[in-house]
Amino acid sequence: MDNRFMSRPSGRTPEQLRDIRITRNFTRHAEGSVLVEFGHTKVLCNASVATDVPRFLRGSGKGWVTAEYGMLPRSTGSRMDREAARGKQGGRTVEIQRLIGRSLRAAVELRALGEHQITIDCDVLQADGGTRTASITGACVALVDALRFMQREKLISTDPLLRMIAAVSVGMYRGKAVLDLDYPEDSAADTDLNLVLAEDGGIIELQGTAEGEPFSEAEFAQMFALGKAGIAELVALQRSALAE
Amino acid sequence: MDNRFMSRPSGRTPEQLRDIRITRNFTRHAEGSVLVEFGHTKVLCNASVATDVPRFLRGSGKGWVTAEYGMLPRSTGSRMDREAARGKQGGRTVEIQRLIGRSLRAAVELRALGEHQITIDCDVLQADGGTRTASITGACVALVDALRFMQREKLISTDPLLRMIAAVSVGMYRGKAVLDLDYPEDSAADTDLNLVLAEDGGIIELQGTAEGEPFSEAEFAQMFALGKAGIAELVALQRSALAE
Amino acid sequence: MDNRFMSRPSGRTPEQLRDIRITRNFTRHAEGSVLVEFGHTKVLCNASVATDVPRFLRGSGKGWVTAEYGMLPRSTGSRMDREAARGKQGGRTVEIQRLIGRSLRAAVELRALGEHQITIDCDVLQADGGTRTASITGACVALVDALRFMQREKLISTDPLLRMIAAVSVGMYRGKAVLDLDYPEDSAADTDLNLVLAEDGGIIELQGTAEGEPFSEAEFAQMFALGKAGIAELVALQRSALAE
Amino acid sequence: MDNRFMSRPSGRTPEQLRDIRITRNFTRHAEGSVLVEFGHTKVLCNASVATDVPRFLRGSGKGWVTAEYGMLPRSTGSRMDREAARGKQGGRTVEIQRLIGRSLRAAVELRALGEHQITIDCDVLQADGGTRTASITGACVALVDALRFMQREKLISTDPLLRMIAAVSVGMYRGKAVLDLDYPEDSAADTDLNLVLAEDGGIIELQGTAEGEPFSEAEFAQMFALGKAGIAELVALQRSALAE
Amino acid sequence: MDNRFMSRPSGRTPEQLRDIRITRNFTRHAEGSVLVEFGHTKVLCNASVATDVPRFLRGSGKGWVTAEYGMLPRSTGSRMDREAARGKQGGRTVEIQRLIGRSLRAAVELRALGEHQITIDCDVLQADGGTRTASITGACVALVDALRFMQREKLISTDPLLRMIAAVSVGMYRGKAVLDLDYPEDSAADTDLNLVLAEDGGIIELQGTAEGEPFSEAEFAQMFALGKAGIAELVALQRSALAE
Amino acid sequence: MDNRFMSRPSGRTPEQLRDIRITRNFTRHAEGSVLVEFGHTKVLCNASVATDVPRFLRGSGKGWVTAEYGMLPRSTGSRMDREAARGKQGGRTVEIQRLIGRSLRAAVELRALGEHQITIDCDVLQADGGTRTASITGACVALVDALRFMQREKLISTDPLLRMIAAVSVGMYRGKAVLDLDYPEDSAADTDLNLVLAEDGGIIELQGTAEGEPFSEAEFAQMFALGKAGIAELVALQRSALAE
Repeated sequence: MDNRFMSRPSGRTPEQLRDIRITRNFTRHAEGSVLVEFGHTKVLCNASVATDVPRFLRGSGKGWVTAEYGMLPRSTGSRMDREAARGKQGGRTVEIQRLIGRSLRAAVELRALGEHQITIDCDVLQADGGTRTASITGACVALVDALRFMQREKLISTDPLLRMIAAVSVGMYRGKAVLDLDYPEDSAADTDLNLVLAEDGGIIELQGTAEGEPFSEAEFAQMFALGKAGIAELVALQRSALAE
Repeated sequence: MDNRFMSRPSGRTPEQLRDIRITRNFTRHAEGSVLVEFGHTKVLCNASVATDVPRFLRGSGKGWVTAEYGMLPRSTGSRMDREAARGKQGGRTVEIQRLIGRSLRAAVELRALGEHQITIDCDVLQADGGTRTASITGACVALVDALRFMQREKLISTDPLLRMIAAVSVGMYRGKAVLDLDYPEDSAADTDLNLVLAEDGGIIELQGTAEGEPFSEAEFAQMFALGKAGIAELVALQRSALAE
Repeated sequence: MDNRFMSRPSGRTPEQLRDIRITRNFTRHAEGSVLVEFGHTKVLCNASVATDVPRFLRGSGKGWVTAEYGMLPRSTGSRMDREAARGKQGGRTVEIQRLIGRSLRAAVELRALGEHQITIDCDVLQADGGTRTASITGACVALVDALRFMQREKLISTDPLLRMIAAVSVGMYRGKAVLDLDYPEDSAADTDLNLVLAEDGGIIELQGTAEGEPFSEAEFAQMFALGKAGIAELVALQRSALAE
Repeated sequence: MDNRFMSRPSGRTPEQLRDIRITRNFTRHAEGSVLVEFGHTKVLCNASVATDVPRFLRGSGKGWVTAEYGMLPRSTGSRMDREAARGKQGGRTVEIQRLIGRSLRAAVELRALGEHQITIDCDVLQADGGTRTASITGACVALVDALRFMQREKLISTDPLLRMIAAVSVGMYRGKAVLDLDYPEDSAADTDLNLVLAEDGGIIELQGTAEGEPFSEAEFAQMFALGKAGIAELVALQRSALAE
Repeated sequence: MDNRFMSRPSGRTPEQLRDIRITRNFTRHAEGSVLVEFGHTKVLCNASVATDVPRFLRGSGKGWVTAEYGMLPRSTGSRMDREAARGKQGGRTVEIQRLIGRSLRAAVELRALGEHQITIDCDVLQADGGTRTASITGACVALVDALRFMQREKLISTDPLLRMIAAVSVGMYRGKAVLDLDYPEDSAADTDLNLVLAEDGGIIELQGTAEGEPFSEAEFAQMFALGKAGIAELVALQRSALAE
Repeated sequence: MDNRFMSRPSGRTPEQLRDIRITRNFTRHAEGSVLVEFGHTKVLCNASVATDVPRFLRGSGKGWVTAEYGMLPRSTGSRMDREAARGKQGGRTVEIQRLIGRSLRAAVELRALGEHQITIDCDVLQADGGTRTASITGACVALVDALRFMQREKLISTDPLLRMIAAVSVGMYRGKAVLDLDYPEDSAADTDLNLVLAEDGGIIELQGTAEGEPFSEAEFAQMFALGKAGIAELVALQRSALAE
């Protein structure tokens, strides 16, 4: 299994992330606007602050964080139908946007938000695998910008941020755990594990799927270790972007 | 932490499943029809065999297994809107039925199915937590009955079953890992881990969510161990039901 | 025409109902929960009490009774599409649930309900003809249980029940009126008459359809007489179930 | 009960139809186009012939007759939402168009139609009660025009018409059976019976509903007799229109 | 170019409108009800007055005018699907109803309407080209009748009408500008210009489309002149209808 | 009216376009991918080539060009609902995408396309007025890139491009015609004219709307002249981008 790393289609070592770029203020209207790039995967994450909350929270004094996800029809190799034209969001879209929203809610103290809702729109401009993990990683930065906006505008008096979160995918590729799969790797991988961790390594979400054969606990352990290290790198990049 | 087990609302020990019942041939039309009960959670799993496959498989010689999930409006404590009347399936429904379908596909050799599709309808008659794990566990039995039907009817000549699969939830409740959460436990748990394993312990799907605080790797390990043991029991019950 | 009764596919005499079973408290959450069986036709009727009424009744002091109807996808010989997945209820479904609701409203004094709504969900677990008449017959028992619940909980102070109602189908089969058609009989019948009567024989709803040739007034009279006798039996069975 | 007829809001005698007008060729494109007026109720019935049949009839050599029904938003006293804008047809609409289609299919020999479909669109321009019975009565005339067109164009070689059909409503109003209810009468009636009969009095469809109290067999008999006489008049008017 | 006018399929001269008829009070329920005929194109325009306005105007003291448009399925040469049955309005429908609404709002002082909404339903009974321009022309007359109703009923104290508006189409047909295209002309025309003008010639809406080759400014000028003259005629016909 | 130009909110002279940027190859998957910027308005135009055509063209030997349009939810000052989540495209969206498609079809010889369809997705990343005119201008460049791709890939043997087209808006602002309105100008303008012209000045589409008072022919002439000059500039910029 020695030097077979070179057979990784991307030429990366197993534990190597793609080039990650986090560009803040990518558009001008949103309270937080981040273009996140994991290699050729590019997602625009826009955070919007609203002074209303879902019905089940009205009068509770608590806020809410939610997310929506979409892919531009030609973000992919062949054109997909536009979900707005088909008249409904597909199952994969719904699944991903629920994951993003749930993950981000773990990053903030909802009570400290007051009765405000932050909606993060994650729109994939270009896809090359890992759009959900890139979305979460970029959305967390957009969320921080939105929280800073709320503090500047005196909408809230304390910082509701509990922790930074980031996400990455890991997979078993040719019998070896590899980090941050791009589309060609993902298509060929036997197993796909998406990890959302807090900056201190606490687990927020963990979703593993055997695409072909079931995977073992040992394989899981290898993948988890790789993902944990990758997320530490991602959090450093988030912090660095936020320090600019 | 010693004797706090008694504080489990259900009175069960942490590693104890609810009463599990698997009733085959619950209805008369489906090729496989199983009522699965995890305590008060009751799900009817009907497997239907069709001699057609989704468009992307036509001409491939391969079959398909898919699932649909629904809850009767008053399967729950307060009535939910009927999804057919609202005109769309909710996000949770879509997420669950995709999970069930993906899990079941790991149980069969799709090529050995020929160009047939098996659809498993999992309809919740009564809910008390863990409907998705009960669904997968019951659906696998209904699937086996459908495969037996296909063999009897000479639709296929070999048995496409690769392995039995079963599923269970595990959670962190008052700082302790507990198996097979019912609704009151689930509502109060900090963490929720759904496991789908093969009969030999291989991992098919694994979905963990921190409802409040992130959870640690150690907590994950405790939960996984409990789930693995629970699934071994469930597979034994599946086998016993199938032997009748 | 003498001994041709034996040609009734079910082997029943023309004036014979199928085996009827009415099981109360079939599920645990609903205020009234009845499994009704007309032979192999099995319908779960759940009554839910809500402290709200449709907009047109707000402030009127009057309550409302309504119904929804659905068939599990594999309640039938070949699998039907799931209405929730198709995104709309079919015409037959809508027609039936309107009939059930209208019929049940004839059983209660809406003013005595106060501003409460009772929704009866009739979900067909297994179908063998006559699902709409079984639904009405079972739903009326679930309704009575819901009214008893409301009285116990002091939501209302008087009993709003005006009368028991029940329903049955009658048809012309090989030139002879027969009661309570099952699916094979229904498919072959020339005429289909659905009757909803009050316990004293008063007519609530009456829907007759010539499937092939028009039918005569004399045939209608035969069918009506058969239906009336059948409904008297059904009301006795409802009362007996309610007395348990 | 003697001279209380004058209390009929319309001033008609109990057995009196409204002014009925049947205007053929009301629009120019349809193969049959009839404006039918029952007093102030005006329905445009357009029959369209197509050389295709629903999937379940392809290759069967049989044809099909179906109907669609709609009300212009301001055909009524207060404006109703446009169903096309709401994105779905209401339950009442679906119920009525199924009734119209079923009734018309009883008028033709489907095999003699060959694999053609006739669709009758019944659009209510102005409503004053009895739109479904006016629709059926007018649609039958439009259907005959479409059948004549098919014969002229040699699409079929024999006349598929089995019988003329017509429809009328009857109600119990202030304890007395009255024919052909207009909107004010319908709103106040205790019982509503819609009858679809063949020209020889054979019963095609019969739908009776107790709006308030159940009705008796004697009341049904009175209403039926009135309806039967009314339909005989309507068929005479249809024939006279077709003879022009 | 001299005598080629005779080649106009309709036999009209280039600057000649079709026979225009404007019939008020065509139906009895609407506050304004106009059947407008441009030759064989027949549109029923019903104006409804409501004492509510869209949300964005509540509390503003201003009213609103809006329009909906539909074609009966067999208003055209071959039957179109019913939009209510398909579950959505087509793009062309939406485009047209937005144009009608926008045009009519230019005819009234919204503040003088108070918080009332007038909805104009334009339903095409028979189509032969130019349905949108006929709709606008007829709708303006229905609107005036609705405003007169509001004044009679003291819902408003001043007349909100700012100006009459009317609409017509013009096209380039065989190199020559022609007025008020019917369907055969429209199908063959190179260019289609729809004009909505005020009675004094002020421009409300102007929509020109090159169906094949782009058109020149000179051609535009010819078409505009023709349209302007046509609209003057139409306004005279509107006024004459309103004077009856 | 002399020096009031400075009161233009953007500070531009009346005949001045915003800064226009046209970036080709903005994303990597589409056959043509252009980011077009009109000042702060940014639209991504992706052209996709497919080897299929709409049903009405199958077997005709002709191709098709169509467009879809969307705005990211937070492309605007306050967040709009996501159309995919609402389950339908709004009227404005439908209107705009029909305009884009119609305009682009005027740029190509459909027969020379063979039976291929080119779909141009115009997705607004950031909006500041004039998104439809920017879309058309950018889409035409993406279309040319897609046609070049088809020639390189030998899908077609001749160049189907008939002419470049571009679009711009013009408005009457404080009594003066001004070119290329941004959002603050558009909101305050009395009249809005959208022009789509061919490179030689031929008119493809022309849509003028009086937002308040009707506008005169003289005003139209001023606006048209401004727009024509602006489009000449835009075509030069398109050509320059295509020459890179």
